[in-house]
Amino acid sequence: MSGWLRVVGLGPGPERWITPEVSEVLAAASDIVGYHVYVSRLVFAEDQRIHRSDNGDELSRAVHALELTANGGKVVVVSGGDPGVFAMAAAVFEAMEHGPLDWRALDVAVLPGVTAMLAAAARLGAPLGNDFCAINLSDNLKPWAVIARRLSLAAQGDFVMALYNPASSARPAQVHDAFAILQAELPETTIVVFARAIGRTDEAVHVTTLGKADPSLADMRTLILVGCQTTRLLERANAGPWIYSPRRLEVDP
Amino acid sequence: MSGWLRVVGLGPGPERWITPEVSEVLAAASDIVGYHVYVSRLVFAEDQRIHRSDNGDELSRAVHALELTANGGKVVVVSGGDPGVFAMAAAVFEAMEHGPLDWRALDVAVLPGVTAMLAAAARLGAPLGNDFCAINLSDNLKPWAVIARRLSLAAQGDFVMALYNPASSARPAQVHDAFAILQAELPETTIVVFARAIGRTDEAVHVTTLGKADPSLADMRTLILVGCQTTRLLERANAGPWIYSPRRLEVDP
Repeated sequence: MSGWLRVVGLGPGPERWITPEVSEVLAAASDIVGYHVYVSRLVFAEDQRIHRSDNGDELSRAVHALELTANGGKVVVVSGGDPGVFAMAAAVFEAMEHGPLDWRALDVAVLPGVTAMLAAAARLGAPLGNDFCAINLSDNLKPWAVIARRLSLAAQGDFVMALYNPASSARPAQVHDAFAILQAELPETTIVVFARAIGRTDEAVHVTTLGKADPSLADMRTLILVGCQTTRLLERANAGPWIYSPRRLEVDP
Repeated sequence: MSGWLRVVGLGPGPERWITPEVSEVLAAASDIVGYHVYVSRLVFAEDQRIHRSDNGDELSRAVHALELTANGGKVVVVSGGDPGVFAMAAAVFEAMEHGPLDWRALDVAVLPGVTAMLAAAARLGAPLGNDFCAINLSDNLKPWAVIARRLSLAAQGDFVMALYNPASSARPAQVHDAFAILQAELPETTIVVFARAIGRTDEAVHVTTLGKADPSLADMRTLILVGCQTTRLLERANAGPWIYSPRRLEVDP
């Protein structure tokens, strides 16, 4: 049995953020499995089999990939960003745990990538320069009460926050609830950034504060960054401000 | 004035994790500035000026890089991992804020990379599959009380935790204090991983539990991952266990 499975991330958008390791396995694959939006970014060889699926079907996509691998396929599962951050890697191991025991002997590896918050942070300056959290605002797979509690605790700890999946057409209201929780815990002056489609041609950055933020700006392609209390704006004449969180923290929050 | 400054990350180790964007600016640079351990990973052209410095001198390294840029240099500042995560990007903007005003008009960009927690997570499976925090355990630049409070709140929120810079020869004791805080908040069965030098030839992974963990295993090259309460071990016959955090969370913590 010579099959293998590689779970990879394409980064948030452009080819210049795809690691050489990932490019190499994509070129060597017999089968490429993924959400059609990510798969459509790639150029394939004629003899590669492409398995496109809709969003939200991660577990059956993972099962399919493991089946192909067990049958000898050289399989790549693609995610956007990094495969381990709110993407396909966890789904693959869920499928493995609940599948045939011999799937655990398969040649499987996860290959790291650039996740959206790192790309957004780089675009803005260095907002993650202090301790930070990443929170997935989707309650498709976890109770909203857990998300609410985590937002509240992260605010109390003065963590910088990266909020993934803030809103979709099916979940337009939760991002408003999330901002209400943050507004109850944090000063109005807290820096907030809506970073949309970073690295893509239609990239957009909106810098505001917690008191003035309009949560309805968020959609499926938006990452929201919430600064800590020491996060700073550095105005520039010829462009939007740099945003960074100093490494030094004198005060006890 | 045709100088530019790029603040880049080399990823945690091997060349296969350096993005094409970073490789391109390294090839185009006139000056490369960085901690000697990171700079020594690279191969240079004969006409490139290399500015090696010791660890712990980030701010003067950043000032130097901005001066070189202001004088027309094509300057790359290198970090390990991602430049925005406990690395050089924040130091560059600190230096810019406190430097001459015309530094703000310089052509500066931060280029994202693969940070250590993503590489360690990929090596292990998908431990970051649920919400997570990244905490720098070094108190060189922030009070220990802040770190202690963040550890406690992250534990209360059942976040997966990535603990950067857990110990050094100058700070051997704090990682023990950190574990005492976690042990007071979390069950003994909580999964803990010491991931050392991931991606390097001397990489080592030690999987244990909070009750059994020996904090003295941590050093400067170690990243500690602390699972959430749903993080699972998936035993394999032919290798160490896969570790993953299921996306689905039924219980209210």
